[in-house]
Amino acid sequence: MTTRSRTRLVARPLAGLAIMAGTLGAASAVTSPAQAAPAENGRAAQAVVQTDVLSADAALTIADAAMKEAVKGKQRVTVVIVDRSGATRLVLKGDGAGPQTEESARRKAFTAVSFGRTTSELGKSVTGEGPTIADIPGTLFLGGGVPVASGGVLVAGIGVGGAPSGDIDEAIAQAGLKAVTGRLR
Amino acid sequence: MTTRSRTRLVARPLAGLAIMAGTLGAASAVTSPAQAAPAENGRAAQAVVQTDVLSADAALTIADAAMKEAVKGKQRVTVVIVDRSGATRLVLKGDGAGPQTEESARRKAFTAVSFGRTTSELGKSVTGEGPTIADIPGTLFLGGGVPVASGGVLVAGIGVGGAPSGDIDEAIAQAGLKAVTGRLR
Amino acid sequence: MTTRSRTRLVARPLAGLAIMAGTLGAASAVTSPAQAAPAENGRAAQAVVQTDVLSADAALTIADAAMKEAVKGKQRVTVVIVDRSGATRLVLKGDGAGPQTEESARRKAFTAVSFGRTTSELGKSVTGEGPTIADIPGTLFLGGGVPVASGGVLVAGIGVGGAPSGDIDEAIAQAGLKAVTGRLR
Amino acid sequence: MTTRSRTRLVARPLAGLAIMAGTLGAASAVTSPAQAAPAENGRAAQAVVQTDVLSADAALTIADAAMKEAVKGKQRVTVVIVDRSGATRLVLKGDGAGPQTEESARRKAFTAVSFGRTTSELGKSVTGEGPTIADIPGTLFLGGGVPVASGGVLVAGIGVGGAPSGDIDEAIAQAGLKAVTGRLR
Amino acid sequence: MTTRSRTRLVARPLAGLAIMAGTLGAASAVTSPAQAAPAENGRAAQAVVQTDVLSADAALTIADAAMKEAVKGKQRVTVVIVDRSGATRLVLKGDGAGPQTEESARRKAFTAVSFGRTTSELGKSVTGEGPTIADIPGTLFLGGGVPVASGGVLVAGIGVGGAPSGDIDEAIAQAGLKAVTGRLR
Amino acid sequence: MTTRSRTRLVARPLAGLAIMAGTLGAASAVTSPAQAAPAENGRAAQAVVQTDVLSADAALTIADAAMKEAVKGKQRVTVVIVDRSGATRLVLKGDGAGPQTEESARRKAFTAVSFGRTTSELGKSVTGEGPTIADIPGTLFLGGGVPVASGGVLVAGIGVGGAPSGDIDEAIAQAGLKAVTGRLR
Amino acid sequence: MTTRSRTRLVARPLAGLAIMAGTLGAASAVTSPAQAAPAENGRAAQAVVQTDVLSADAALTIADAAMKEAVKGKQRVTVVIVDRSGATRLVLKGDGAGPQTEESARRKAFTAVSFGRTTSELGKSVTGEGPTIADIPGTLFLGGGVPVASGGVLVAGIGVGGAPSGDIDEAIAQAGLKAVTGRLR
Amino acid sequence: MTTRSRTRLVARPLAGLAIMAGTLGAASAVTSPAQAAPAENGRAAQAVVQTDVLSADAALTIADAAMKEAVKGKQRVTVVIVDRSGATRLVLKGDGAGPQTEESARRKAFTAVSFGRTTSELGKSVTGEGPTIADIPGTLFLGGGVPVASGGVLVAGIGVGGAPSGDIDEAIAQAGLKAVTGRLR
Repeated sequence: MTTRSRTRLVARPLAGLAIMAGTLGAASAVTSPAQAAPAENGRAAQAVVQTDVLSADAALTIADAAMKEAVKGKQRVTVVIVDRSGATRLVLKGDGAGPQTEESARRKAFTAVSFGRTTSELGKSVTGEGPTIADIPGTLFLGGGVPVASGGVLVAGIGVGGAPSGDIDEAIAQAGLKAVTGRLR
Repeated sequence: MTTRSRTRLVARPLAGLAIMAGTLGAASAVTSPAQAAPAENGRAAQAVVQTDVLSADAALTIADAAMKEAVKGKQRVTVVIVDRSGATRLVLKGDGAGPQTEESARRKAFTAVSFGRTTSELGKSVTGEGPTIADIPGTLFLGGGVPVASGGVLVAGIGVGGAPSGDIDEAIAQAGLKAVTGRLR
Repeated sequence: MTTRSRTRLVARPLAGLAIMAGTLGAASAVTSPAQAAPAENGRAAQAVVQTDVLSADAALTIADAAMKEAVKGKQRVTVVIVDRSGATRLVLKGDGAGPQTEESARRKAFTAVSFGRTTSELGKSVTGEGPTIADIPGTLFLGGGVPVASGGVLVAGIGVGGAPSGDIDEAIAQAGLKAVTGRLR
Repeated sequence: MTTRSRTRLVARPLAGLAIMAGTLGAASAVTSPAQAAPAENGRAAQAVVQTDVLSADAALTIADAAMKEAVKGKQRVTVVIVDRSGATRLVLKGDGAGPQTEESARRKAFTAVSFGRTTSELGKSVTGEGPTIADIPGTLFLGGGVPVASGGVLVAGIGVGGAPSGDIDEAIAQAGLKAVTGRLR
Repeated sequence: MTTRSRTRLVARPLAGLAIMAGTLGAASAVTSPAQAAPAENGRAAQAVVQTDVLSADAALTIADAAMKEAVKGKQRVTVVIVDRSGATRLVLKGDGAGPQTEESARRKAFTAVSFGRTTSELGKSVTGEGPTIADIPGTLFLGGGVPVASGGVLVAGIGVGGAPSGDIDEAIAQAGLKAVTGRLR
Repeated sequence: MTTRSRTRLVARPLAGLAIMAGTLGAASAVTSPAQAAPAENGRAAQAVVQTDVLSADAALTIADAAMKEAVKGKQRVTVVIVDRSGATRLVLKGDGAGPQTEESARRKAFTAVSFGRTTSELGKSVTGEGPTIADIPGTLFLGGGVPVASGGVLVAGIGVGGAPSGDIDEAIAQAGLKAVTGRLR
Repeated sequence: MTTRSRTRLVARPLAGLAIMAGTLGAASAVTSPAQAAPAENGRAAQAVVQTDVLSADAALTIADAAMKEAVKGKQRVTVVIVDRSGATRLVLKGDGAGPQTEESARRKAFTAVSFGRTTSELGKSVTGEGPTIADIPGTLFLGGGVPVASGGVLVAGIGVGGAPSGDIDEAIAQAGLKAVTGRLR
Repeated sequence: MTTRSRTRLVARPLAGLAIMAGTLGAASAVTSPAQAAPAENGRAAQAVVQTDVLSADAALTIADAAMKEAVKGKQRVTVVIVDRSGATRLVLKGDGAGPQTEESARRKAFTAVSFGRTTSELGKSVTGEGPTIADIPGTLFLGGGVPVASGGVLVAGIGVGGAPSGDIDEAIAQAGLKAVTGRLR
């Protein structure tokens, strides 16, 4: 039997991130973070966990809005959206976007959905000597990656690559996110 | 706003498979199939879709039961469970299992969760001249792959590799599935 | 100096395909095929060749129309569009689409843009003993791949994967193509 | 003929590590290290060497204990165990664990079983200018990797990824190790 | 209908780069940069965008000239040319060139065509703490990569690897570029 | 505590193969097969399992003998030895051996150590319509792969590639095996 | 000391191929085959073996001639040349060549230099049930691959892909080979 | 016609390295370097270039001597030898060598044969800010890589990985090299 009550499993969605904030520096946790909290009540309880996934329709809406923003600013970019499992939800390569933009956008999206923050915030933490989370395969800490959360739970990452600075890439990604914000919880 | 009513989106979960059965041969559809049906009601409706995911606890229970069955039969196997996004949920390599078992078990699990049937059933369809679904990357149509469904929706695939025949591999996978059946919808 | 006269290089766009048709079987060449014919007039003539590329806007239009067609038919599919260089133009994974659909859709798109025909037509040719073009890496000859041509020149391939038969996948891809036909030459 | 006396080949198991300690810094060698010492007595002696491998049962016990510890602390992590050959022994992705956790946990496990120390200790050494062992492919020097030794010989590495700090990941891995310590030599 | 007027889409070809220059440092933008500016005029306008691609003949001319320059200087190098989609246009491994030269030349070419500058210029920017564009997969910021532009639009990148310094590699690449300059717009 | 009695775990080493023989055809099981049988006695029993691994010295002896046999017959081959975990033990590319020989030899060795038989025997079984074990990644069923067993347990696979027929490749591999037979149990 | 007498090591260059011919069918060995025969005279003799490698200049000449032939016939192809170690010597993608042509040309070149025959001849042998050399990774047995020999020793393979039939691809490759025949021994 | 006079093409074998030395720092060029100098005399001259390749027999001798040295010092290492094309010549994994040793040894060998120096010398140069040759894929600049030259021409690289310091790895590689020094020119 699945636990499917209205009071869902997401009891303390921000706990994990709060600790992470401490680890990564003083940046405030503007985006609400992680997946449904793991069950604590033993094996008998349930065999499935409900997870929110960004819809294909919302992904198209985000990509369309982001690309319009890019075109308005004469930027040639690629937009990638990945879900919380890391699987591709959407890729849209803009007109004239460079060959490096697909992979850089993908990695920014992956990084944002992995750690629950924008890549620009996260990038401030991966400095100095010794190992950092930037050593984890598949990540990229340049600006342009933005997490998508619904009801305090991470559901996707948006990544944009191709503009001459990460700030511009991020603004384009945020324009995409804004187009669906009203339809998230 | 997420659509989160009790009457969920899974209106006709078997429709897709019924057609597939026609395509793939006379094999009966013993396992109920696919994901929540896609929304038809336009962009405004929702930005997230609820998806059931097999819990880590259930995955451990499946693997433990399957491995016990394998040991009882003196089989040296690997068990792999992947979720509906194709991501790894669990890998357990048994004592003495051959080096080919991890990848073969993974592909059987992937195939079962992709097409919503056991790989032994599916394998009967991939014969004859010309292209078949066996040409799709990541698949393997030897016996030993079993889909996991909850409430008529595919949530995972179990794959077992290493026994001297696909029938034995499948029996081991089924023993794993049986251990959680009561906890699925 | 670039040769940039109005009478472009595409002198005999169908010649190549006519021969291919002979090779691949009796299937008629419904889609006009290949790139600008190569220059014959020696080194001095030109350093660049003009190539038509499907616009990002058209790619979004195709994906949107194809996905609407899929939703209408309760199909859970992924749509991929690749350009004539093989690079990704667009990926859109539909709600509930299986984990195998991204790669199968990509390969169908790749195959269609490589050979200038639908994968269903091409699939009839890759039978019998001995080597066939189905041995070429990156290809897949299941139905669902449709080439896009403009002015007699191939510009992209659309691939759809996830429906229970290749015919349905192809119909979805054709619905996508239809949405931009009036804007192609 | 195999040399199979009771006085096994592991004559000076710690020698190698003692030197390594010198190389890597002042960190004490809390975990006993490497494989059976290589034979010195020429070709005639033996064709096989006995090697201890962590059992599948022990791997399940470790994963179960580690995941319970993670759930207790509201952490969403993946646990990976690799053997001394680098082959996967176990992967368990926890509920809500991010997409980066499988690979980061695997690399921590790989690093711990390669160098015979926790990744947190090792991480202190890979700083400063110039090449370090962090340049070796497959490694990751963030906290969360713990070696498993039996009778002074390395048999496996446990890696945990997903908690907001490496200290927490390592504590979870240590909880897993503790569950089998009494059954190691 | 394709927009195919003489006043092409390339309205402000240098705009993007101007911003990039600000981002990357004071280096002057000696090479004209990016692709046709994206359309701003909505969906109805066009389904294809015209793109200039370096011809095979020009690629051969570049490689021949570059290799002659290398031989003259007793350098053992590989020359790679990639187009703006990142696809290979030409690879020529010189006599006695080391095994690392193919991939290093390819990455220099890729980097130059991605960012529209020589890799030696770009290399000056990827220093200091924190993430840089050098973290983007497929790039290499050693000297020897030179972009090729036609009419203010990037069409290819030339990469040379194998000489004992990046300056020499770049001089060889520039000798190749010079051989076709008169035939570019 | 490790179970380390003299009566080792290898109770019925041939059981698995006997069944496999039935599956794969009438070929006799000339080589004794698989790893230590898995434990049946519950979690408390042990945390490590003893495994025999081919020594480096024996690997060198095998390679040297095989290469001498090849040279005697004017064959240009590569010899690869992999252990039961699938990890490389030895690669030796002979003078003038073709570029395809390393991978073909590796896959033959992998196949032999996975299934406990020569690849020439196994190759007779992978015929006819429908899926076979030849679909498992990493395998190759051309002659030239020979398993190595010690005390009824598989410890390695020897693969040879490059001779004009699989029979010759296998004879070379057998010459290598013969050089250490007296030193196996 | 290197053996560097005039009577080189290539004593019986055709022996190996003669046997291969028997294996692969009745096709005559039009191209002289393999590398310097391996040394038979023990360890003391030599540490290096002289090998002929196709020069970069010859590779350019071949590619130029092949591409001219292709342009003359209105074919859009890619030409790849690999040396006997399997390493890339040259890649030239023709104007309008499809995205599949680079890899198919590379594999044809690899196959021709691996087995010392044209891929069209070899393709006749890879039919019927059971394993064949077409299962070896990196190979492709469609027409268009031609071996290059010098003094009875294989030095390179030329592969052409993109024409509508393998016969045309092979004629283009042969035109390339013809351009250097007078300069081979 | 091949140029095959006694006065071979290697006119100024050290020239390239001399410049490299300047680039990389003050380290003396103890190992003689690069391949036959490229031809300068136009297309008609030759179609093949003679190249020295380390023999399989010499590779075995090197590996045997290196492994004996390792065993004597109780080191658990892997030895890899690659030729000047980057292709594998030999891999030998020692008893108890860690899973990271194969790839680290391979990269050291690759680096040494690419740049014509020991990796310990080269490692001193890859420090400081900005891009270095350590960014080139496939390289590793930890001690343990040693180039092999014959007659002033690079023929192979030896790489050793697994000892607790690069100095020890290099001493083992040098012991291997010493075993064939008398047989090189």
